[in-house]
Amino acid sequence: MANGSFSTPKTYQLFVPEIKRLLSLKKLAELEKFLNALSAFDITDAWKEFTPDEKTILFNLLKTSLSVKVFETLDMPDQKHILSTLSDDVTQAFLQDVPADDLARVFHKLPNRVVKHLFSYIKKAEMVRYVNEMLSFPEHTAGSLMDPKFFTLKKDLTAHQAITALSAAVHTTTDEPLVDIYVADGDGRLLGQVALADLFRASSNMKISEIMTSTQRIQVPAILDQEKVAEHFRKFDLLSCPVVDPEGKLLGIIPASRILDVVREEATEDVQKIGGMEALDAPYFQIGFFSMVKKRAGWLLVLFVGETFTASAMGFFQAELEKALVLALFIPLIISSGGNSGSQATTLVIRAMALGEVRLRDWWKVMRREIASGLTLGGILGCFGLLRILLWPARTTLYGEHYVLIGFTVAASLVGIVLWGTLAGSMLPLILRRLGFDPAAASAPFVATLVDVTGLVIYFTAASLILSGSLL
Amino acid sequence: MANGSFSTPKTYQLFVPEIKRLLSLKKLAELEKFLNALSAFDITDAWKEFTPDEKTILFNLLKTSLSVKVFETLDMPDQKHILSTLSDDVTQAFLQDVPADDLARVFHKLPNRVVKHLFSYIKKAEMVRYVNEMLSFPEHTAGSLMDPKFFTLKKDLTAHQAITALSAAVHTTTDEPLVDIYVADGDGRLLGQVALADLFRASSNMKISEIMTSTQRIQVPAILDQEKVAEHFRKFDLLSCPVVDPEGKLLGIIPASRILDVVREEATEDVQKIGGMEALDAPYFQIGFFSMVKKRAGWLLVLFVGETFTASAMGFFQAELEKALVLALFIPLIISSGGNSGSQATTLVIRAMALGEVRLRDWWKVMRREIASGLTLGGILGCFGLLRILLWPARTTLYGEHYVLIGFTVAASLVGIVLWGTLAGSMLPLILRRLGFDPAAASAPFVATLVDVTGLVIYFTAASLILSGSLL
Repeated sequence: MANGSFSTPKTYQLFVPEIKRLLSLKKLAELEKFLNALSAFDITDAWKEFTPDEKTILFNLLKTSLSVKVFETLDMPDQKHILSTLSDDVTQAFLQDVPADDLARVFHKLPNRVVKHLFSYIKKAEMVRYVNEMLSFPEHTAGSLMDPKFFTLKKDLTAHQAITALSAAVHTTTDEPLVDIYVADGDGRLLGQVALADLFRASSNMKISEIMTSTQRIQVPAILDQEKVAEHFRKFDLLSCPVVDPEGKLLGIIPASRILDVVREEATEDVQKIGGMEALDAPYFQIGFFSMVKKRAGWLLVLFVGETFTASAMGFFQAELEKALVLALFIPLIISSGGNSGSQATTLVIRAMALGEVRLRDWWKVMRREIASGLTLGGILGCFGLLRILLWPARTTLYGEHYVLIGFTVAASLVGIVLWGTLAGSMLPLILRRLGFDPAAASAPFVATLVDVTGLVIYFTAASLILSGSLL
Repeated sequence: MANGSFSTPKTYQLFVPEIKRLLSLKKLAELEKFLNALSAFDITDAWKEFTPDEKTILFNLLKTSLSVKVFETLDMPDQKHILSTLSDDVTQAFLQDVPADDLARVFHKLPNRVVKHLFSYIKKAEMVRYVNEMLSFPEHTAGSLMDPKFFTLKKDLTAHQAITALSAAVHTTTDEPLVDIYVADGDGRLLGQVALADLFRASSNMKISEIMTSTQRIQVPAILDQEKVAEHFRKFDLLSCPVVDPEGKLLGIIPASRILDVVREEATEDVQKIGGMEALDAPYFQIGFFSMVKKRAGWLLVLFVGETFTASAMGFFQAELEKALVLALFIPLIISSGGNSGSQATTLVIRAMALGEVRLRDWWKVMRREIASGLTLGGILGCFGLLRILLWPARTTLYGEHYVLIGFTVAASLVGIVLWGTLAGSMLPLILRRLGFDPAAASAPFVATLVDVTGLVIYFTAASLILSGSLL
């Protein structure tokens, strides 16, 4: 879906050569001046053009305000790299200004030793508390996504007082855009929210308690999985979401912009699992070669071992094959049709489950639908297969005198195998979820392997029923 | 990733039976009273429990303010259904209040006839203009995502005047939460934006032109594809984004909450294509049986026709098969290993391209990486295959006296096929993009089919090289 008329301004192509030149000449003072005249977005855009060592040099040359902005917009692997290689004096300045939530997210990915070292640089007690609080929640939970810095109103303020308090607060504490303002009691327990528009709309002596709306349905517990949090944002069309502890105390706010990352991350994980590998934890070019091979080899081996059963199955039918070698010709055609229909069905159901469209209790509705689909799709392929054999010019030389019977064997097997593939593919994700596993593990290759082995059995059974007395 | 401690309050399970009871008794007056006491979210949650006819009855009973809220939170197919079946007097009231952007999105999916009919009910000229403006942009573009109702400031206002203008405006025009406020000149051309926090922070006689920041890098053209818009939100961590025409006139604002739907929709399309089918345009249970079968059968047939070449390829090697039937045993194992590695590679590259991690110009870097991966993965599987044959207890009965040579044939073929599968799988999405097609069409089953046919050629070539003089 290319779009000609819009392209991100690629200004970095103009200044990257200059940076590279200054780097190679080691003119660091000049480079520092040049870099700090650029915008954070320009630098982030150009970041991938540099080697890890160059990145370290460049980042150390940025002034603190710029380095914080660049850090915020870089991807996780680059953030990790920076925090691990920053020079001591730069670290000192940098760590005081970087937002606590960004820091906590990177700390989750760094070795304990490095985190401890970095913590020793943080001067503000408040910052230490924020980061520690966020680190206390596991990755991929609401608690690890939230911004622990927020502003709350008391419920007995008037609208006028609230606006004054708000403008005083933005002077000092928060950089985040304000959308919804939360109301809490003296113990920090979340009471409700006030939309900024409603605050403006209210007459100035109206009490916050009269303007605020309930957050009962919107607030999420800190330990909620991020996939569920994303679902929640979509369902309620949220721009921000309050995170609470079991006592209802407000812990932080998640902005919608962060959820975009979550949705992409979760979709990527699912896509990779559906493709038959372990989910990678970094972008394609950033993950190390051996970690990538490891994540691919594991599943390939599992599938390979599963697939060796086809050799056993074929060995079992060796007598039939010797009598009618022509049967071998159609083996790849038949098992791959089963694999393809299984791959379609499993992908469809995995995605529908990820989106919450299909739930466990729907299994019977799914099964009915997929039996009908499998029979229809199998019927279509069966007819095609039959015609392919009956109408092929060289049919008698290639398939022998019994080519009509062979045609019917292939057609019947196709109906059976496509039905079985569709059924196995659609039920497997539901069975995995029922057993407490990730449905996305029912990858297309996994289903295909399962269907290959059983497909051979279906094929040779159909053959011995239809061909016994003639070829067999 | 289940999470026990949090579940959406399923209060609807309490009132659905009551609604069903009143429906069956046709006590519509009582039902109307009961329904209008519920919240919009409760009704949306419960919506899927009713049949299409019941939905029509229920929606017609809702008071306008509630029906608008319910409409906004329902999925597209339900929105379409409602607009197509609404009774005339309800339509009249309803259409005056529903947000123009929601309406335009549904209108895109409705037949022209219905849209015309509905237009005749809209009384407000402004609303007609908004909807028409949005309909003038194709679906899946920035223009179709934006909210055409927005508030702008003039640049020579003071901060104090701006706050006054803003609070006057929220009284009358907008329901959307305010995050960024845009600044436009007399012709509506976008000049910049003011973060609400900055407006509060500024001293009251500061000019907007001094507070505002540039939107040059953030604004998007109305015809930009939604996938690019989503990428844009993520890159700049946006909570809202201005949409402009070629002259720079502000046309509307896209809120981040809408982008969550886009990201999910695009990921779903990619997942379904990777699974080897056309992307469905509705949730699993809402799409009609025959449209679903059509979208699956098309690709299954294409793959089937491709796969019939395996029968031709095998026919070509029939002489070898007659001499060494044992070769047939390993065919499924070998071709499926090629298919599995191809499926991994294509999925990986398609997703990396969708995320912008891999671009066309990176093809050589990808190719180098995948040649190395293919050789490593093929080597691992080859060793396993060799050992499987050499150490199998019944090796001489099953594979004959030349089982060592057969082992090496299988191992060599595995290296070749996995390398070829990995290479084909990784390059195909890039080639498709280069030719102007969607990379996601290089689905796992498509690559597997491609690799199956060539895999047979590789296998029999390896066999004739290694086994000539012994078995062949």
